[in-house]
Amino acid sequence: MSEAPRDIENLIELMAKLPGLGPRSARRAVLYLIRKRALVLTPLADAMQAVAETARECVTCGNVSTSDRCDICVSEKRSTGEICVVEDVADLWAMERAGLFKGRYHVLGGTLSALDAVGPEDLGIPRLVQRVVDDNISEVILALNATVDGQTTAHYIADELEGRCLVSSLAQGVPIGGELDYLDEGTISAALSARKRM
Amino acid sequence: MSEAPRDIENLIELMAKLPGLGPRSARRAVLYLIRKRALVLTPLADAMQAVAETARECVTCGNVSTSDRCDICVSEKRSTGEICVVEDVADLWAMERAGLFKGRYHVLGGTLSALDAVGPEDLGIPRLVQRVVDDNISEVILALNATVDGQTTAHYIADELEGRCLVSSLAQGVPIGGELDYLDEGTISAALSARKRM
Ligand SMILES: [Zn+2]
Ligand SMILES: [Zn+2]
Repeated sequence: MSEAPRDIENLIELMAKLPGLGPRSARRAVLYLIRKRALVLTPLADAMQAVAETARECVTCGNVSTSDRCDICVSEKRSTGEICVVEDVADLWAMERAGLFKGRYHVLGGTLSALDAVGPEDLGIPRLVQRVVDDNISEVILALNATVDGQTTAHYIADELEGRCLVSSLAQGVPIGGELDYLDEGTISAALSARKRM
Repeated sequence: MSEAPRDIENLIELMAKLPGLGPRSARRAVLYLIRKRALVLTPLADAMQAVAETARECVTCGNVSTSDRCDICVSEKRSTGEICVVEDVADLWAMERAGLFKGRYHVLGGTLSALDAVGPEDLGIPRLVQRVVDDNISEVILALNATVDGQTTAHYIADELEGRCLVSSLAQGVPIGGELDYLDEGTISAALSARKRM
């Protein structure tokens, strides 16, 4: 690409690195930004600068934060007896949007993977076990993705925590509004096995 | 959305305004940016700042530029006898990627629309006519979208330029690699009408 001035080309190339934006949508986004300079471009540049300066990882749970410990870890309103384990911060946000869970989190930052040499230390699993012991945690809820890697990691964590606290995981089944016709066999089988009497 | 710290929430909301990014992809993009702070986030904030400060519209053709007149309008390598009329800068970039056209441009910034009260002055059509006269333009190539509004605008411009220069428009037909099965009837009809002897 060399059809735009260098500054604009540079911005397009950086935007194209974002997940969900290819080169074409990056070009359209940049033209939009130029048209909305005062309303969007300048505020966006400022917001990125602010996040670049303040965003960090919560030392306790791994959530994104603007201080050493995240809002959830320091909140007096959150119960201290349960920890929900998630793969990444997007999953933590999804749990928070659901709004039901009122305990605290542990963000793994990935899943165990022999291929990518990701071991328990890389995911902070020893630190999770230590939290369970130190903070007298009664229940750890595993909210990992229903993938092979997610479930392997869930089993490993359940083994590590055995005898130290209750360990549970999200129920598998038909999503609300889900049509059977669109669901894979694994989901249907899991929903059938976990069927409930009405 | 209130699950992230305020600075990060603010960034997500601004990102979600970009064309092609909804709330979910904006959240994922922001998490990616935080992970790639040094490599992507800070350079992106800087690039946006630079574009916010320098980007403007070329006074001659309407292209985006970092000076009063764009690179194409000031280039000695571009021929001065032809003007290609496009709807927006993304279309100008698409023409430049094709690499065949070596003249200059006129960017309309839209199409005529009675409904949205977009008239010829809003698209700089009188200015285009003046350029044709002043610069002794021999040919105006209309590279407008093959939509109803695009073609209405093309006919209006062709009428305005009648007797002043040659006016042509991009050929319509089957795109390279295009499969008939996936093309709409209008394209197939246009390609049939404009068929060429082999
Ligand atoms: Zn935390
Ligand atoms: Zn120009």
